[in-house]
Amino acid sequence: MTAYSCMNEAELKYEYARVLAKYDLCKSKGLNLNMARGKPAKAQLDLVSDILTVMTTVEDCFDGTIDSRNYGELAGLPSARAYWADVLDCKPSEIFVGGAASLNMMCDIVSRAYTHGLLHSPRPWCKEEKVKFLCPAPGYDRHFQIGEFYGAELITIPMTSTGPDMGMIEEYVKDPQVKMIWVVPKYSNPDGIIFSDETIRRFANLKPAAPDFAIIWDNAYCMHEFEGEYVPFPDIISLCAEAGRPDMVFEFASTSKITFAGGGTSCMAASEANIDYFTGVFGVQMISYDKVNQLRHVKYLKDKAHTLEIMKRHASIMAPKFRCVSEWLNREIAPLGFAHWNDPKGGYFVSLNTMPGTAKRVWQLCKDAGVTMTNAGATFPYRNDPNDSNIRIAPSLPPVEELEEAMDVFTTCLKLAALEKLLNK
Amino acid sequence: MTAYSCMNEAELKYEYARVLAKYDLCKSKGLNLNMARGKPAKAQLDLVSDILTVMTTVEDCFDGTIDSRNYGELAGLPSARAYWADVLDCKPSEIFVGGAASLNMMCDIVSRAYTHGLLHSPRPWCKEEKVKFLCPAPGYDRHFQIGEFYGAELITIPMTSTGPDMGMIEEYVKDPQVKMIWVVPKYSNPDGIIFSDETIRRFANLKPAAPDFAIIWDNAYCMHEFEGEYVPFPDIISLCAEAGRPDMVFEFASTSKITFAGGGTSCMAASEANIDYFTGVFGVQMISYDKVNQLRHVKYLKDKAHTLEIMKRHASIMAPKFRCVSEWLNREIAPLGFAHWNDPKGGYFVSLNTMPGTAKRVWQLCKDAGVTMTNAGATFPYRNDPNDSNIRIAPSLPPVEELEEAMDVFTTCLKLAALEKLLNK
Repeated sequence: MTAYSCMNEAELKYEYARVLAKYDLCKSKGLNLNMARGKPAKAQLDLVSDILTVMTTVEDCFDGTIDSRNYGELAGLPSARAYWADVLDCKPSEIFVGGAASLNMMCDIVSRAYTHGLLHSPRPWCKEEKVKFLCPAPGYDRHFQIGEFYGAELITIPMTSTGPDMGMIEEYVKDPQVKMIWVVPKYSNPDGIIFSDETIRRFANLKPAAPDFAIIWDNAYCMHEFEGEYVPFPDIISLCAEAGRPDMVFEFASTSKITFAGGGTSCMAASEANIDYFTGVFGVQMISYDKVNQLRHVKYLKDKAHTLEIMKRHASIMAPKFRCVSEWLNREIAPLGFAHWNDPKGGYFVSLNTMPGTAKRVWQLCKDAGVTMTNAGATFPYRNDPNDSNIRIAPSLPPVEELEEAMDVFTTCLKLAALEKLLNK
Repeated sequence: MTAYSCMNEAELKYEYARVLAKYDLCKSKGLNLNMARGKPAKAQLDLVSDILTVMTTVEDCFDGTIDSRNYGELAGLPSARAYWADVLDCKPSEIFVGGAASLNMMCDIVSRAYTHGLLHSPRPWCKEEKVKFLCPAPGYDRHFQIGEFYGAELITIPMTSTGPDMGMIEEYVKDPQVKMIWVVPKYSNPDGIIFSDETIRRFANLKPAAPDFAIIWDNAYCMHEFEGEYVPFPDIISLCAEAGRPDMVFEFASTSKITFAGGGTSCMAASEANIDYFTGVFGVQMISYDKVNQLRHVKYLKDKAHTLEIMKRHASIMAPKFRCVSEWLNREIAPLGFAHWNDPKGGYFVSLNTMPGTAKRVWQLCKDAGVTMTNAGATFPYRNDPNDSNIRIAPSLPPVEELEEAMDVFTTCLKLAALEKLLNK
């Protein structure tokens, strides 16, 4: 195969006709495939469904002397706090265990920041003239959506291979209107990047002008290797404390991609002062979160070491899917030279940058051929990818057979959109 | 026994010495008893713990074709929406099934009202000069706390034997700053009153000046008879619709006192327009609530009729406790003529009004003798009972043997505080 950039017009036209014919063939199959969201596959849910039977008797419901079935323990069952402290390498007193979704707690933090303020806020954010959030992008659309919902100005920070552009962040936080940054530090969504030690150190040592500047450290994929061994990851809570800003960071994790996406548990890790403050704040809205499910998870997952064994079993289902994506891209797209993508060893996504100005078109072509992709632009603030180039591939949900079909369509659409662009179609 | 009001000073002094001696005896026992919160007893939690085994296999996890274990169905599993529609006598499309706590959804509604507004809000409530909430009192302290947290002005509305003073409410809602009223319409907390048909009709026919005035209809005890048969209760959603303000009411219910207080499910019932609006709003913070637990509850509770059978079993545990309270009060306090109380047939509380100016003292005397009661004043906005008279008795948690001891202490403290007052001690 020849790179498109090396083809003359006649060659491009020939290729276009060939690819269009292929696309029409794909379309005629009447497919209905989905690579849009990071949903676990049925096989993954099946392999952890023995969690349903770890708690069956009255005696099983007790965490020491605490009855998980009754009200109380707003910050979480002691054993659940200890479990997450083990996972995130912090203290149980630095853990608040919430409900089914860490996203809900992130949104609660922002919501209360707007109406009441964080621990060190001079005033509620709704009383500020303007509030700005830093948004490394490509990033997680639901993070951006929360900021947009609350009317923050979203500022795009470019991603590098070691994490977000830290120089730019260090510059931006000198502005007291900059109140928050949202990151996925391990297997970032969608780039699959693990922040380097240097990046993490610079995060912990940020000296923001706003006394209530907060880092939302969404460690959603903290144990989510699907290839190779577990990658140890430093505890951001203690690093921020050592750097003299212990209350600057809120870390989040959940079991949404460990047990059930529709019935897991989640946690927030933060300084004890923040945990105390938010236990008070959350006490207005809650008597206690679902401690039965917290205990069920502790009984099933046991500790970090045992959870990592379970993650190996997830990996055996995930890895072939990512290999499928990689093989299709390497075989069909790499030689054509118009796109590049990451090759993650964990997380849930492959992030692909195709020919600028064609991502939206690729999405539409896929849709018309029965393959749903994440909306082009979704990985950028305001759903606006300035290059119209980034596409997030989420291969976890479909079985490999379907993924093969979907990647056939997707790579065809990538080519077709690129050729249309080159030929000014 | 002679009523205190009929005693002369010598008789009162004699009685005081006698009661004080009794109190000192109580104190010497070193008790540690709790009648503070409406927590289910261990025996109640035990009798529903077979819910832990209704869902054990992969096949059990499906609600039709929907896998409860994965993301999706933000408004709730279809079967869970149908369950609550059966309970509350409305349509499944008028139900949003949330997480473990209905209080959390109530707080979310208020929070979003402040930052974004309700469906018909001209502007977010944080942009209003002032926002006022009507608070029938005695009422539920956590309702008042949410209003206070968000800075609303709380206006006390007296309770009558048929519900809140509707004439006063109809007058107050002419003020466009009055945005919300909070009520527990069946077995009200703490009075145990069932709103009369007339009261309910007048609620549905309110013509508030604020276009976004909302009734928080917290139907926490909708199936919670502990004596006698289930009392049918009209559907407020359709009544408001018939009266021309379909979006004025948000009804809440939960299984916190049906299955597990620390691991149930909850629902909001409202007009389809409100459900649509809030499904959008909640979609910012959640991908989906815990559908595994929703399905577990549907499998266990089945429908309203079967749930009412389970409630009969709760009643067999609850009724002797309320009888115990009633017997102690009738025997020890009634003849003395300085206090009155309700005699509920459902809910979780007995509401007692003792001699004005003595409730706080009773609470302190109880505490010093090892019996924890709900804080005096808690049943009023700003924790301020203008008469310092109301005390909420929550007899559900302790076993009857302990309750006997606790009521012995409590009735002694009621007498002692009254005598102190009469004798200006």
